[in-house]
Amino acid sequence: GSFVSPQGLIITNHHCAYGAIQQASTAERDLLADGFSAATFSDEIPAPDYTVRVTEDYQDVSAEVLDVITPDMSFLERTKAIERRQKEIEASAEKQNPGLRAEVAEMFTGKTYVLFLYTYLKDIRLVFAPPQSVGNFGGEVDNWMWPRHTGDFSFMRAYTAPDGSSATYSADNVPYRPRRHVEVEPAGVQEEDAVFLLGYPGRTARHKTASFLEFEQGFRLPFVVELYNWQIEVMTAAGAEDRDVAIRLASRIRSLANVEKRSRGQLQGLKRANIVSARRAAEVQLQSYIEAEPGRKKQFGDILKKIDAVYASQTERAESDALVGQLVRASRALELAFFLYDYAHQRALPDLKRESAYTDRNIEQSIQRMRGAIRDFHGPTDAKLLSGLVSRLQAAGVTLDWDAQQVADIPGETKVVDADTFDRLLTADINELDQLQDPAMQFVRSIYPKLLEIRDLDKERDGQLSQLYGDLIDIKQKFMATDFVPDANATLRLTCGYIRRYQPADAIIKLPITTFTGVLNKTTGQAPFNTPARVLDAYAEQRFGPFRNQELGDVPVAILYNTDTTGGNSGSPIFNASGKLVGVNFDRCFEATINDFAWNENYSRSIGVDIRYVLWITGYVYEAEHLLREMGVSR
Amino acid sequence: GSFVSPQGLIITNHHCAYGAIQQASTAERDLLADGFSAATFSDEIPAPDYTVRVTEDYQDVSAEVLDVITPDMSFLERTKAIERRQKEIEASAEKQNPGLRAEVAEMFTGKTYVLFLYTYLKDIRLVFAPPQSVGNFGGEVDNWMWPRHTGDFSFMRAYTAPDGSSATYSADNVPYRPRRHVEVEPAGVQEEDAVFLLGYPGRTARHKTASFLEFEQGFRLPFVVELYNWQIEVMTAAGAEDRDVAIRLASRIRSLANVEKRSRGQLQGLKRANIVSARRAAEVQLQSYIEAEPGRKKQFGDILKKIDAVYASQTERAESDALVGQLVRASRALELAFFLYDYAHQRALPDLKRESAYTDRNIEQSIQRMRGAIRDFHGPTDAKLLSGLVSRLQAAGVTLDWDAQQVADIPGETKVVDADTFDRLLTADINELDQLQDPAMQFVRSIYPKLLEIRDLDKERDGQLSQLYGDLIDIKQKFMATDFVPDANATLRLTCGYIRRYQPADAIIKLPITTFTGVLNKTTGQAPFNTPARVLDAYAEQRFGPFRNQELGDVPVAILYNTDTTGGNSGSPIFNASGKLVGVNFDRCFEATINDFAWNENYSRSIGVDIRYVLWITGYVYEAEHLLREMGVSR
Repeated sequence: GSFVSPQGLIITNHHCAYGAIQQASTAERDLLADGFSAATFSDEIPAPDYTVRVTEDYQDVSAEVLDVITPDMSFLERTKAIERRQKEIEASAEKQNPGLRAEVAEMFTGKTYVLFLYTYLKDIRLVFAPPQSVGNFGGEVDNWMWPRHTGDFSFMRAYTAPDGSSATYSADNVPYRPRRHVEVEPAGVQEEDAVFLLGYPGRTARHKTASFLEFEQGFRLPFVVELYNWQIEVMTAAGAEDRDVAIRLASRIRSLANVEKRSRGQLQGLKRANIVSARRAAEVQLQSYIEAEPGRKKQFGDILKKIDAVYASQTERAESDALVGQLVRASRALELAFFLYDYAHQRALPDLKRESAYTDRNIEQSIQRMRGAIRDFHGPTDAKLLSGLVSRLQAAGVTLDWDAQQVADIPGETKVVDADTFDRLLTADINELDQLQDPAMQFVRSIYPKLLEIRDLDKERDGQLSQLYGDLIDIKQKFMATDFVPDANATLRLTCGYIRRYQPADAIIKLPITTFTGVLNKTTGQAPFNTPARVLDAYAEQRFGPFRNQELGDVPVAILYNTDTTGGNSGSPIFNASGKLVGVNFDRCFEATINDFAWNENYSRSIGVDIRYVLWITGYVYEAEHLLREMGVSR
Repeated sequence: GSFVSPQGLIITNHHCAYGAIQQASTAERDLLADGFSAATFSDEIPAPDYTVRVTEDYQDVSAEVLDVITPDMSFLERTKAIERRQKEIEASAEKQNPGLRAEVAEMFTGKTYVLFLYTYLKDIRLVFAPPQSVGNFGGEVDNWMWPRHTGDFSFMRAYTAPDGSSATYSADNVPYRPRRHVEVEPAGVQEEDAVFLLGYPGRTARHKTASFLEFEQGFRLPFVVELYNWQIEVMTAAGAEDRDVAIRLASRIRSLANVEKRSRGQLQGLKRANIVSARRAAEVQLQSYIEAEPGRKKQFGDILKKIDAVYASQTERAESDALVGQLVRASRALELAFFLYDYAHQRALPDLKRESAYTDRNIEQSIQRMRGAIRDFHGPTDAKLLSGLVSRLQAAGVTLDWDAQQVADIPGETKVVDADTFDRLLTADINELDQLQDPAMQFVRSIYPKLLEIRDLDKERDGQLSQLYGDLIDIKQKFMATDFVPDANATLRLTCGYIRRYQPADAIIKLPITTFTGVLNKTTGQAPFNTPARVLDAYAEQRFGPFRNQELGDVPVAILYNTDTTGGNSGSPIFNASGKLVGVNFDRCFEATINDFAWNENYSRSIGVDIRYVLWITGYVYEAEHLLREMGVSR
């Protein structure tokens, strides 16, 4: 999100404010369905779970960090020394900058470190949200899709203590005064306008090798697509017969569908843009560069070969390992039993030696997650998933002590899916669990050694790859010089591009600005295509304000641009060449799911809500004129 | 189709030659899968079921026909007198033109008559067909869709007796020498080129009233979409569990899906192009014109009102009547029982008084159709369809003697679905059938009076409408003068237009020429997207001949144009402004399914295979160079 007024008003996505809207809803007042508009500051609704992180400053501290390294250190010692120095720098920075939070981010493994200074604002309130039927128009059907007609925006406001310092909610708090805020451009954009985005894109894999991409394309993505489609089918069939079951499984289906669709898009994109062979070709050039100089050859000559070998060894057992891992993920009964059993083992270790999920910092959240698993457990579905997975394991040549028919009885018989039993077993030790006559626990015990073996193997591989990639990035950076673009790592990034059409398939062109006519054509009256009467009326009565665009002959809704975004760019402001706000980023098109692997001029397109739609819906349809005035837009 | 050489070579659609290709296939030689290319004339394969009709001449004979009418005739007498005069004119024309067939077509009900003179060629042979994976690439998935990548063409040849007269197959026959043949344009077309088509479009409903369209939009089309989707779902679910059942039901599903998709397209088109209100507005103007002159007002003043009243009365009982009709269509068991029972009744009548299906001319074909129904009968599916329909009838307030559970037993118990029993019962009289203890026959007996009532009501309505529309067309023609465009009626029509892109939805543009890259992107290796290796190889090896288009940077595959076509235009030649052949028409886009009701510049687009694709596949991929030479195209 970004500040759009001197009084801490924030524009972000509807899907970013979703939790706050949901939490503020009551049986009498359904803000998701009806939307919300605070008439005055005092009507704004606190969102206690929300924080806003403002990047105040950053500096390269690589020299300071790497100073601790001595040539005789092992890889493990080196890692530990670096981690210690990072913590020292953070502590010292926070001392020098009271009220700010310091974080040292590793930009390149073992090479580059940047100190970021952040303000964390803790009193965030909901100001305006359109109804879900605008903010999430098209829902899952249109997710990852263009043309898009979603008004995915809402307004929040940050508050501080009266002295301007960060503070949790208090009635005495005052609106936050940002050092700078963004000016809104009510005239919007037109095709081929330059735009840029600021945001916090998550991790990308642009510097992974061709062998990694081959693993993704040849095994992991097709595996996920097939496996998740099957799980979605099983759950959908269960829901078709029973509405309660459908509701219980809805969220699992949605999250599987989201990953399935993205994976399918990535698979299509990898193939169509020939990304693997392009990367292989780039590696051939890199290898020539490495071998052109004896010193380089000695140090880096076999890196690519070594990385390829790691993926080759991973590929050998990838399917059986992935299927074993799915046993304790797809089946809620086994997931719960495994959590209890694993937790009992891990509790015996000192805190810092535990798996992250079981550390004191995280255990409460992990238990909450398991309680969610109990709530969406459905016995017959669990049985189908479990026996299906066991059949697949048998087909993959993995022998288990139980067959597909035997495991099908587990979900109906186990007690670990009972909330009270689960809570009681959270304190049970290994001996007690070992003696428990519960079929889920018995089955988990039988596969536990296999699960530990896979976990150790993963760690070993990660360690190896982390070291190898550190070196690879090092030489790649030298080779590519100024053409080198680092991977994203959830720190602040800028990306530039244009409002631009694209051609997703032969003889199809998709234009970069959608209009309200598209909303009308998609509107069926049934969610997720149920446009509110208030919006339809305003349009029918031509109450467009200044937001009916002459050239389009219509009210613009969403925009498409070729900037480089990825997961984490939700809510990123879209600026025009003058730095004025023309939209809010919320998604990528289906073909741009490959952005995680490579940006591509033909297919990489991101999707934002048009500021003209934001202003029309807010100021003209829902008549929150005061917000437009606060943003300096007169009506 | 059209003649493309002086030796009777015909180019038409693959789907038009389908029957000939299928019939010529044997277990050893699967011409549908592999395609066919006759190296010499003597290798061409006779297609005994095919005839070619050549329009030789036509003239307006309205005056001669209407001469028989006297003012005192009733509507029925008038109709009969006209029919008699038509037959006289045909007989006399055939006498004057030995070897030709004469047909008088009614262009406007009771108003305009044209005498057409046709040559019927009866020795037609298969010359060249690409594999089905080219000729039907995309199959049902792409049916009614653009962008399209189907090579829907094949070549046949007409033969005559050595003296040039029409004759059935004989080894002595010689290639037909058409008076004119079409020249092929190997350079093809580009966007915005003018094109025209000659063809035999089937019946359209352009002059039907707004009340008719309201009936279509408000009841019939949504009813068909819902009902057929449900039937498709039931059949697909049955097939999912049993491959044999899937094969048995495939053709029924395909034909339901074709109509469902067209109906869905028509429904969308009617709504989106606001066709009903446009027609209503046109009727208001027509009514003003009628009322502007007392004589006109007296004669035509209440025509529109009367037509509206017919549709209003039809609407009242439309759902229940349609559902009752579906009982003996969706259920094969009831269809067969009804056929036997109805046939027994109809046999008692003189031939010319029977329903068309039971006349001596047609009965053999009708029985054949019933044998097909026996072949694709599947008891459990029939039971589901039958009890579903009975539930729907109950919900619609129709009381039957049997309930949904009782009818579900019929398909499993009836014997009319047994081929021998059916054949035996074909000669059974009403008494015998009335005493038959067969549940399908018993149920049909219970609903027979209702079915007869519906049949009579339909006839009455048709008679009324036929008279009213005759008058409506009469006054409309006067009102519209030169703007008046007659409905199509399967006689020869010319239509002009342009190779033109269109915008089917907000922010989507579809270009009017597809390319082979689209074939590659759609190709999955699984039917209907399994491009033959031979085609892929020719493309990969860049053996394009002159057919790689500079501007497109690719081999063109299909073309899109805004001419006015409808069902019946399959195989119609597409000419450029110089009258040279640039493609062969084979489909319309989804949005152009509304052509039956109204042509619309935004949505009415027809689809043809590009002559460049035809020539590339024929001459370069499958190396039938002699055919290119015969068409005057050198390679």
